[in-house]
Amino acid sequence: MKVSVKTPATIANLGPGFDSFGLALPLYNIISVEETVLPGSGIEINIIDEKNNEANANVDIPLDKNNIVYKAIELLYNFIGQVPTELKITIKTQIPISRGLGSSASVIVGGLLAANELLGRPADEKVLMSIATEIEGHPDNIAPAFVGGVTMASWEEDGSVVYRKLPWNDEWKLMVCVPDYELNTDISRSVLPKEVPMKDAIFNLKKSAMLVDALYNKDEELLKLSLKDKLHQPYREKLVPGLAEIINNLKHINGVIGTVLCGAGPAIMVVYNGIGASEIKEKVSETWNYYNVNVNFLNLPIEKEGAVIL
Amino acid sequence: MKVSVKTPATIANLGPGFDSFGLALPLYNIISVEETVLPGSGIEINIIDEKNNEANANVDIPLDKNNIVYKAIELLYNFIGQVPTELKITIKTQIPISRGLGSSASVIVGGLLAANELLGRPADEKVLMSIATEIEGHPDNIAPAFVGGVTMASWEEDGSVVYRKLPWNDEWKLMVCVPDYELNTDISRSVLPKEVPMKDAIFNLKKSAMLVDALYNKDEELLKLSLKDKLHQPYREKLVPGLAEIINNLKHINGVIGTVLCGAGPAIMVVYNGIGASEIKEKVSETWNYYNVNVNFLNLPIEKEGAVIL
Repeated sequence: MKVSVKTPATIANLGPGFDSFGLALPLYNIISVEETVLPGSGIEINIIDEKNNEANANVDIPLDKNNIVYKAIELLYNFIGQVPTELKITIKTQIPISRGLGSSASVIVGGLLAANELLGRPADEKVLMSIATEIEGHPDNIAPAFVGGVTMASWEEDGSVVYRKLPWNDEWKLMVCVPDYELNTDISRSVLPKEVPMKDAIFNLKKSAMLVDALYNKDEELLKLSLKDKLHQPYREKLVPGLAEIINNLKHINGVIGTVLCGAGPAIMVVYNGIGASEIKEKVSETWNYYNVNVNFLNLPIEKEGAVIL
Repeated sequence: MKVSVKTPATIANLGPGFDSFGLALPLYNIISVEETVLPGSGIEINIIDEKNNEANANVDIPLDKNNIVYKAIELLYNFIGQVPTELKITIKTQIPISRGLGSSASVIVGGLLAANELLGRPADEKVLMSIATEIEGHPDNIAPAFVGGVTMASWEEDGSVVYRKLPWNDEWKLMVCVPDYELNTDISRSVLPKEVPMKDAIFNLKKSAMLVDALYNKDEELLKLSLKDKLHQPYREKLVPGLAEIINNLKHINGVIGTVLCGAGPAIMVVYNGIGASEIKEKVSETWNYYNVNVNFLNLPIEKEGAVIL
């Protein structure tokens, strides 16, 4: 038996909501899991880049038991007192990796859902989300990969993940600017300080609260004031050359509501009200071209659906 | 001409929303401002404790040009290019001072509104709120003192105060536990560190976002998870003996949703769903009596109205 799951790309943080907020995009990975007799270790993992029709091209992703999809599935088997023996995992990717678009959350969630289906659904959403968060380290991408839309999620002390879906005004559009280089999430996290100024902590808690209020009230003025961050973006500027300039330059474009880093970067998300798209592209290209970075623009709506069993 | 304004008591922070969130209580100060010929400095300030029928009993409050109400009014006069010359300010107090119940915000807002009325309303709410916040240092108590209800407020870089009113489920009741000692706000602020762990900053931004979501959805489960703080309460425990024990003890009482410090303390606010009031009082008294602290309980609804010109 083989089960396939389609899971969306996600963008975490959304500016102030570091490690908490996220949203889903209509760009997908498909993860298939099959219990089957296999030679050797009993584990076979294949990653197929759908765009380039290449298999296992990315040498950085482990294809053995260190693979995060395998690890997540192993935890699920452990949850029902079993260990996986013979598993074939196939990942068809449309989501660019190491760009801040939640490719790892997507494959973890997809793998877990597929394996849970294979096993006759022993785990509910609560358990699956906890396992996925344990592997990923934080729930910001996990929640929207699971349930779609815009979410805020918290990994509570008891190990459970509490999340809520937030409303979104469909008049607000996204321009996702994806540069042509990868940025490893661990590196992007390593530049963050262990301690931050109290005033920055206060800044972000205010802006996170304002963001939730802005979403509930479709309040564009408040959204504009809330898509700001002092806890992670300033430290990541050195890894994403041009970030501060782009945020600053886009401020003056009519229609732009806010510009934030996608997850750990290096992609940048622009929220705008439907006008100014070509000017946004121009300004971003201009800045990044100065740093010899090429950019691919994804003008996408929010994906309201989460992971789907095919 | 004499103008009097009634301004409510307020509670700031509400747990996670340090320096941002606040709510108004039906407990008032009345501030009267009169332009009149006076001997000496031309300024006369009287504070009348309505409960004890005492005038100018609190020696800690300056009754000259260093008085915060006078200072706020002076800024308003400056705003229209004038200086106050002969002013009589009378403050009738019902709000206990230095307990975390926003007595200073209340008199600043009351004085400003009264003076603005005297001057023929030269300033709008935006200007008055900026002046009040400049004197107070943060807008968390100022916003609810002005407009009532539950608010979140941000003092933006351009000096303006942005605030929004938040909904409240009237099934949620407040038990405000006021101990019989004062705690100076400056001292309570001096124990806070300049830097805080990143993980605590993330904790509070999550909880602040959850708090807004809980209020919009009347979501008691989420409110319970959100009324938590790691940025100020832990540091203030040494100034409010029994705080951690009370928060912890009340958790187990049926009906209690959350327990937080009121502003800079030492009062404590318990949010509960209508049952368990006597048990709350018992537990709080028990702990504080151990520390030789007597406590006065105020079982109050939220004041939906803000400052009112009488």
